[in-house]
Amino acid sequence: MSDNADGLELQPRVRVRVQLGDRVAVGPGKSELLALISETGSISAAARRMGMSYRRAWLLVEEMNSCFRAPLVETVKGGRGGGGAQLTPTGEQVLAGYHALEKTLYGTAEFKALTDLLVLSPA
Amino acid sequence: MSDNADGLELQPRVRVRVQLGDRVAVGPGKSELLALISETGSISAAARRMGMSYRRAWLLVEEMNSCFRAPLVETVKGGRGGGGAQLTPTGEQVLAGYHALEKTLYGTAEFKALTDLLVLSPA
Repeated sequence: MSDNADGLELQPRVRVRVQLGDRVAVGPGKSELLALISETGSISAAARRMGMSYRRAWLLVEEMNSCFRAPLVETVKGGRGGGGAQLTPTGEQVLAGYHALEKTLYGTAEFKALTDLLVLSPA
Repeated sequence: MSDNADGLELQPRVRVRVQLGDRVAVGPGKSELLALISETGSISAAARRMGMSYRRAWLLVEEMNSCFRAPLVETVKGGRGGGGAQLTPTGEQVLAGYHALEKTLYGTAEFKALTDLLVLSPA
C-alpha cells in the first residue's frame, strides 16, 4: 500500500458508499466481496480471502440483494466442490458501475482541488 | 430522513471519504464536525451536537489538521464563553471542497446508472 515508506508520497484515495436509507447498498467492502465471489466462484472462498466469516459474507450479500431490483449473487448447484456462487447480470453491472463511479470521482476537478490541499508526504 | 414512511421513495445517498494512507482526511463525520464548529464557534458545542465527547471531536480535528497542508481549525481566545474555535481559510476550503465533490458525484452519469439499479421503495 501507499502508507509509510521513507520519502514516498502518500496517494489520496476515495472510498464511496452508496446508501439506501440506513443500508449500505454498495461500498468498498461489498464491492470487494462481489469481485472475490466473481473471481473464486464461492461465497465462502471470498469470505476467507477477506478474513470474514461465511455468515458475515452471506449477510452482506443478502443486504446487497435487498437493495437492488434483482439479486447480485446467485448460488449454483454442482460444479467444483459441489456448488458455488456467481454474480448475476445485475451483480456484474453493479460491480462495474461502482468501479466506474470511483474512477469518475478521481478524474473530477473537485477531487483534485480537495486533494491538492493534502499533505502528500508521510507524517 | 428518507427511511421508512409508507409509499415514499428512499433516496439513494452517497458518502465519500478521502483517505490519506490509513487516515481519513475528510468524510461525512469530519465534514459535519467542521460545519458545526463553523456554526457554533466551539469544538465542545459541535461535539455535543454530534453526541460525541470533546476528546473524540478534538482527536478528529487533530487528525484532519495532520492530513492537510495547514490546520483546518484554530482555537481563539476570548469572545463568548472565554474562547472558542473557528475554521481557518484552509478549513473553509476543505469544507466547501468536500461539499462540491459530493455534489459533483450526484450529478454524474455513473451515479445515475448505478442508482437506477436500486429498489427505491421501502423494504
